[in-house]
Amino acid sequence: MHTIPLTAIEVVREFWRLMASNDFHSVGAVLADDYTLDWPQSNERIRGKERFATVNAEYPSSGFWTFTVNRIIGSDSEVVSDVSVTDGVQSANAISFFTVVDGKIARQVEFWPEPYPAPGNRKHLVERIQ
Amino acid sequence: MHTIPLTAIEVVREFWRLMASNDFHSVGAVLADDYTLDWPQSNERIRGKERFATVNAEYPSSGFWTFTVNRIIGSDSEVVSDVSVTDGVQSANAISFFTVVDGKIARQVEFWPEPYPAPGNRKHLVERIQ
Repeated sequence: MHTIPLTAIEVVREFWRLMASNDFHSVGAVLADDYTLDWPQSNERIRGKERFATVNAEYPSSGFWTFTVNRIIGSDSEVVSDVSVTDGVQSANAISFFTVVDGKIARQVEFWPEPYPAPGNRKHLVERIQ
Repeated sequence: MHTIPLTAIEVVREFWRLMASNDFHSVGAVLADDYTLDWPQSNERIRGKERFATVNAEYPSSGFWTFTVNRIIGSDSEVVSDVSVTDGVQSANAISFFTVVDGKIARQVEFWPEPYPAPGNRKHLVERIQ
């Protein structure tokens, strides 16, 4: 008996399901041996499952992290997700680009866009989203 | 004689090609009549081709805008692009989620992640990307 390989989107859904456990070592199950995570905004690269788990486990937190997948889009090997993250005090939004190879995430490039005030000079051209 | 409809990714490539002309009215050719552009970080929505063109044309600039498509990923109707934008003085990065309906962009949700300093407390776990 053999199992049907997960699609790239299914692998990324599994990534976020495992993240939601807050056991960041468990996420290694979907990461390739040569996994890298890039945060281009701070010019940081995290290499490998072990460091990935440690960075997440050591991130200052007020409790349990919850993850809401707002959107997930993918092709055969490339997937993008838009995920809201909160520990009840801090809230952030992650836009993550995943490259999936042989059912594992080989590469993740992640952006963390922050709120900013709407410029006054285009006020007459825009409306509020909510 | 009839033309083969563009795929969603081709429509988005055409969007960026037209943006590169800096004639922002020309971009209307790939926008649906009920087009909306959302900037969630500033809670701004731009509705329609006319306002889209005006917001872009009136954005403070030092000259000609150039656009570099770093990455583009899509499915049948959903496309994401990661694009670098510069006028030679200002530089920014746009992550844009497009919904394409009948060969036109109906909805665009766009994020502008900004650089931030790498936290010192994870310095031992990361390397620089470049």
